[in-house]
Amino acid sequence: MAAPEPSEDDDDDRLRAVVRGAWIDGEAKAPEPDMLAREEPLEIRVNQVAIAVVMRTPGDDEELVRGFLLSERIVAEVSAIASARHCTTVDTPEAEDNVMLVRLGPSVEVDLAALRRNLYASSSCGVCGKASIEAVIGEPGLARAGLPLGLRVAVDTLTALPERLRARQDVFERTGGLHAAGLFTADGQLLAVREDVGRHNAVDKVIGWAAGEGVAHERCVLMVSGRVSFEIVQKALALAIPVVAAVSAPTSLAVELARAAGMTLVGFVRDRRLCVYAGAERVYSTAKSV
Amino acid sequence: MAAPEPSEDDDDDRLRAVVRGAWIDGEAKAPEPDMLAREEPLEIRVNQVAIAVVMRTPGDDEELVRGFLLSERIVAEVSAIASARHCTTVDTPEAEDNVMLVRLGPSVEVDLAALRRNLYASSSCGVCGKASIEAVIGEPGLARAGLPLGLRVAVDTLTALPERLRARQDVFERTGGLHAAGLFTADGQLLAVREDVGRHNAVDKVIGWAAGEGVAHERCVLMVSGRVSFEIVQKALALAIPVVAAVSAPTSLAVELARAAGMTLVGFVRDRRLCVYAGAERVYSTAKSV
Repeated sequence: MAAPEPSEDDDDDRLRAVVRGAWIDGEAKAPEPDMLAREEPLEIRVNQVAIAVVMRTPGDDEELVRGFLLSERIVAEVSAIASARHCTTVDTPEAEDNVMLVRLGPSVEVDLAALRRNLYASSSCGVCGKASIEAVIGEPGLARAGLPLGLRVAVDTLTALPERLRARQDVFERTGGLHAAGLFTADGQLLAVREDVGRHNAVDKVIGWAAGEGVAHERCVLMVSGRVSFEIVQKALALAIPVVAAVSAPTSLAVELARAAGMTLVGFVRDRRLCVYAGAERVYSTAKSV
Repeated sequence: MAAPEPSEDDDDDRLRAVVRGAWIDGEAKAPEPDMLAREEPLEIRVNQVAIAVVMRTPGDDEELVRGFLLSERIVAEVSAIASARHCTTVDTPEAEDNVMLVRLGPSVEVDLAALRRNLYASSSCGVCGKASIEAVIGEPGLARAGLPLGLRVAVDTLTALPERLRARQDVFERTGGLHAAGLFTADGQLLAVREDVGRHNAVDKVIGWAAGEGVAHERCVLMVSGRVSFEIVQKALALAIPVVAAVSAPTSLAVELARAAGMTLVGFVRDRRLCVYAGAERVYSTAKSV
């Protein structure tokens, strides 16, 4: 019997076919084709300078780069990005898909220090959660007073989001191997879903999608398939997204940053329940109010 | 009625008490105390130079730093680290717990370029999965021929690991917010479990634990609570850990690297099943062989 070959019936860039073995109830199964979530490095070059390499799932690379530059506050607005395209002059064909060349507008200055500053405060402030929050909240352009109230969201709308997200997690359904992020309107309408091996990348991709479409981030609810860390809240905050919802738990620093910034953060959104960790004023019940 | 206060009955560094609201079946619940997984930045300084900041759960910081330096191949062996301790001369008390000072032995040279090289190949090789694998496999000291066969593991042993790991995920039980990594012997004996908001950190902590205890990594099985990315396999490989097992899915590049390096990689280890993605020769059934 010939060895099985990886399935070739799918040219989705986000998937890779493999052949793998299995054991079930102590019994070895014959090798069979399976699908994996694809992971490849992506180098981001801004005005010829390599600023970052992210391990990501190929596809929607323009959105990823656009979202990354915005959410890391390397550029202040999407109009600063004159163009973003794959490099076509690298040595090997494999690498062509893995280098993105970004050109900024002529008068735009890139703030590469933001990449470092966003991660933690300068050593003069000390390295701690409080300093990390100060570093983010104190950024120019972000009101210290916090996000405006902006939209409000019904609790029934929030509890319906995980199912809507899951229904669009195409690659997760086939591989079990991807994080997802979705953008929704305040009344729960799905705007975009992106999946990626990196949870940050999935968020950057939907952020970048909205920026490209001219959708106002401050009118959106961001839903993520897993947990919420400081960095996810930081990314949402950079775009003034007022509500972040998660299927799973937030970290302590995610909650502290959301509270300091006046962002609504809900976690453990499952079945007909959710926990509100910050910004309860944006969550209401249709049964009682408004 | 006085507002509830965060619970103070726990001084576990890995937890932070908060008060949060909840909605259940459309009804708002009174705010109540809850526990979150703690997240704080940790700056790692090697011979006075800050080389990295990781967002991590406080605790076991020496293990984390030791594991990080080894798994990122910044040092070749644990004996290169003369000392690793918290800084006590930073400005604020909060920051003292978040800066680790590492001193290397007098004749040790630190390979900071490894931090960058491990992420992706130099631009002359192109940026792609193949080049990333070459960059890791081609490292001095790692045989291109792959890991030696070393230990073998019974399939029944592997399928028993998730429950043993879960039983020791103390913080996850209380917060739902942490990744876990465990080191086991080839016959399934638990050596160490560490939990962290970052999945890489959890791996670095158990690796660093083993290095400190003089436990041979090449005799260990590494089990992780979630998915397996390229970087997790890379970290295991740097210590010559021959078997990596995961509750969830591997990425394509994780599998490719494991295969290229001769490592055993099993995923979806649940109930009495598992999938073998690489190195099937180390997995055997007690019913049939050995």
